[in-house]
Amino acid sequence: MGDGIEVTELFGIGTKYVISSTTHQKLAVIVRKDGTREIYAFSKGDEEQPKVVIRLDEEEARRVGAVLTGTYYGD
Amino acid sequence: MGDGIEVTELFGIGTKYVISSTTHQKLAVIVRKDGTREIYAFSKGDEEQPKVVIRLDEEEARRVGAVLTGTYYGD
Repeated sequence: MGDGIEVTELFGIGTKYVISSTTHQKLAVIVRKDGTREIYAFSKGDEEQPKVVIRLDEEEARRVGAVLTGTYYGD
Repeated sequence: MGDGIEVTELFGIGTKYVISSTTHQKLAVIVRKDGTREIYAFSKGDEEQPKVVIRLDEEEARRVGAVLTGTYYGD
């Protein structure tokens, strides 16, 4: 589980997680101290300027996370 | 946990999860039968044409999901 994620503390802001991938674009998630999350997607060859940013509050992040990990089961 | 997610079976493709939100853009995740996931983000007022799409393989999706749900703990 610890593979492929690089964790960086952003002083005063929160924690940055960079998810590496051989086949796809680079992804980063910033978890802010207030609970909001931002997903950044970068194009190959341009790792400075994110191509897209998705902002999620804590509740949305939990929902999206559950779907992504396959732990969401409907009613 | 079952709140705020609308699940639709996409025949022959997989499952679509639409995550509703009062404050933010609409989000949808498609989990394909081959394990790949796509995150779609829509602008308010335009729920037909996704503003961004992020494609993830199963491994990446697990990593991103763990970070989003707060269940990722580094080494």
